[in-house]
Amino acid sequence: MNCIRKGDAIVFSRPPSLPAFAAVAGKREGEGPLGSCFDEVLHDNALGQKCWEKAESLLQQRAASLALKKAGLDQTELDAVLCGDLQNQCTASGYALRELDMPSIGLYGACSTMVQALALAGCLVAGGAARRALAVTSSHFCAAERQFRTPLDYGGKRAPTAQWTVTGAGAVVVQPDGPGPFLRAAAFGRVRDAGVKDLANMGAAMAPAAAETLLRFFADTGAAPDDFDGIYTGDLGLVGSRLLHTLLEKEGVRMTNHHDCGLLIFDRARQPVQAGGSGCGCCASVLAGRLLPALRTGEMRRILVAATGALMSSTTVQQGESIPAVSHLVELAAGPKEEL
Amino acid sequence: MNCIRKGDAIVFSRPPSLPAFAAVAGKREGEGPLGSCFDEVLHDNALGQKCWEKAESLLQQRAASLALKKAGLDQTELDAVLCGDLQNQCTASGYALRELDMPSIGLYGACSTMVQALALAGCLVAGGAARRALAVTSSHFCAAERQFRTPLDYGGKRAPTAQWTVTGAGAVVVQPDGPGPFLRAAAFGRVRDAGVKDLANMGAAMAPAAAETLLRFFADTGAAPDDFDGIYTGDLGLVGSRLLHTLLEKEGVRMTNHHDCGLLIFDRARQPVQAGGSGCGCCASVLAGRLLPALRTGEMRRILVAATGALMSSTTVQQGESIPAVSHLVELAAGPKEEL
Repeated sequence: MNCIRKGDAIVFSRPPSLPAFAAVAGKREGEGPLGSCFDEVLHDNALGQKCWEKAESLLQQRAASLALKKAGLDQTELDAVLCGDLQNQCTASGYALRELDMPSIGLYGACSTMVQALALAGCLVAGGAARRALAVTSSHFCAAERQFRTPLDYGGKRAPTAQWTVTGAGAVVVQPDGPGPFLRAAAFGRVRDAGVKDLANMGAAMAPAAAETLLRFFADTGAAPDDFDGIYTGDLGLVGSRLLHTLLEKEGVRMTNHHDCGLLIFDRARQPVQAGGSGCGCCASVLAGRLLPALRTGEMRRILVAATGALMSSTTVQQGESIPAVSHLVELAAGPKEEL
Repeated sequence: MNCIRKGDAIVFSRPPSLPAFAAVAGKREGEGPLGSCFDEVLHDNALGQKCWEKAESLLQQRAASLALKKAGLDQTELDAVLCGDLQNQCTASGYALRELDMPSIGLYGACSTMVQALALAGCLVAGGAARRALAVTSSHFCAAERQFRTPLDYGGKRAPTAQWTVTGAGAVVVQPDGPGPFLRAAAFGRVRDAGVKDLANMGAAMAPAAAETLLRFFADTGAAPDDFDGIYTGDLGLVGSRLLHTLLEKEGVRMTNHHDCGLLIFDRARQPVQAGGSGCGCCASVLAGRLLPALRTGEMRRILVAATGALMSSTTVQQGESIPAVSHLVELAAGPKEEL
């Protein structure tokens, strides 16, 4: 077997290589602390399209094309593309796939989709179901606002606990062998619902899922937080991150190396993004633009990325339902057998 | 390697076993030709819930529980559940997963989701990423109507080319060894867009994707239509099925053993379902209720199931976009090395 199962953790006996990755980010994201990390920063978040939804589709296409170009690959050399987004019926992906002529696997994990895609791509490549796969996800602030909250033109007030959907996309190529970084392990999360009903407080809804996945991963693999250069969540924002620490400390686990993609991508002191960033494109662009490059240069050697997704819709929230959440995890390392 | 890649086809060198499966269907589906095949037929499509969306979630839970019960399994014995549905943000699955305490993988492939889930479950099990997995999908007529078309209370007229979303769910357990039927091969489809813009003619939008996947599978594996006891599409309905035959015959391929899940589940002569059934629950309930049992008893030995999905949303249709579609395929057989 190419994957060894330890509890919920999937450990790759021959870790897949991530030879190329690319991140495309919106204007505001480009003005943030990671602005120089992205392969492309948009000047116009509409990308010349007549609607935000189409612009988001184009974001995925651009990230995918850039990743393939950096890998020196043609799309005919890909056996699968795993993709997802936040639009109803995942149309940013569906319409991007029209332009990408590859066997396609549509995913929905809300803001956790990038890690879900990367984990699945790793499983497919390790098991021989795909010789090479591409994971790509996106989100667009303007498409998300009018779908989940109110159209931008209404100028609605935002709660301080709210998160700002990132305009961005990330794409990562996965193959059995090649240069680092490597995908060492993965875990698909279990859905948790802490009873939060506030659409403007996703961080609180998602933190219990992240805690569950991290605690299980530590227990299943025997790893401890300090075994990693960094533990990245995406995207709990300020409220969810604080709650995650509280939940882990209750179980006797302390993380001194935790960062959240939603807090890294914006500078909350000078950018009005409330509790931080979110969206399938947040974790995707931070992963492809900042984390994977740092593993490639050796700036970091071994990290965990636990992406979180809130699985409600506007309909279920209007129906008075609480918000279930999930957190998927990948362990990434500079070398295939990396230890700190 | 446990999977051998031939073009887009994934051939399992040790075909995973499908030891148990269950189908739950709505009232109208229970009155159709397959009524006696389903494990459970609803008397009340609301399942005592206050909204259709919740009722659909319950459909998935029931199908999953029944499949586990028939397999003699507890949910702790499952390493992954792969699921999806048509609701915005796949909430039928998200809320069902709250009750299913398993590592969860959310999918979106519109009406093709069941085959996508089964194919992925096979890849995970064959590669060792999961020791045992569950594929489950659902759809609900009333939830789909008000989301994609108009609320039922409006009493809108339906076009003759329109398809009737099935109220139903199907669940299938996948594991490395065990009794048949077996998952012999799978193929993830490429997205195709024939330019159809009519939300009431999904069959026409999806037929080109089914043709693409079937033609590639025959070319990749050397198989011919007559090698199978049946070739099942899900769900092209009457319009899409006719178009599929036309498209295949253009390429010199004739199928005399083709059936469509959307035409099998209803009797169009006495049930007012326009061009036939559709929805993630259509293919899922026909697969779990009719096709897999027939492979188990030996009534059929080897079949193809090519499920089709239309990847638009109400938003993209309102924006004047045409409808992209995808078709995923599985080859199922009574025995692991079955030939006709």
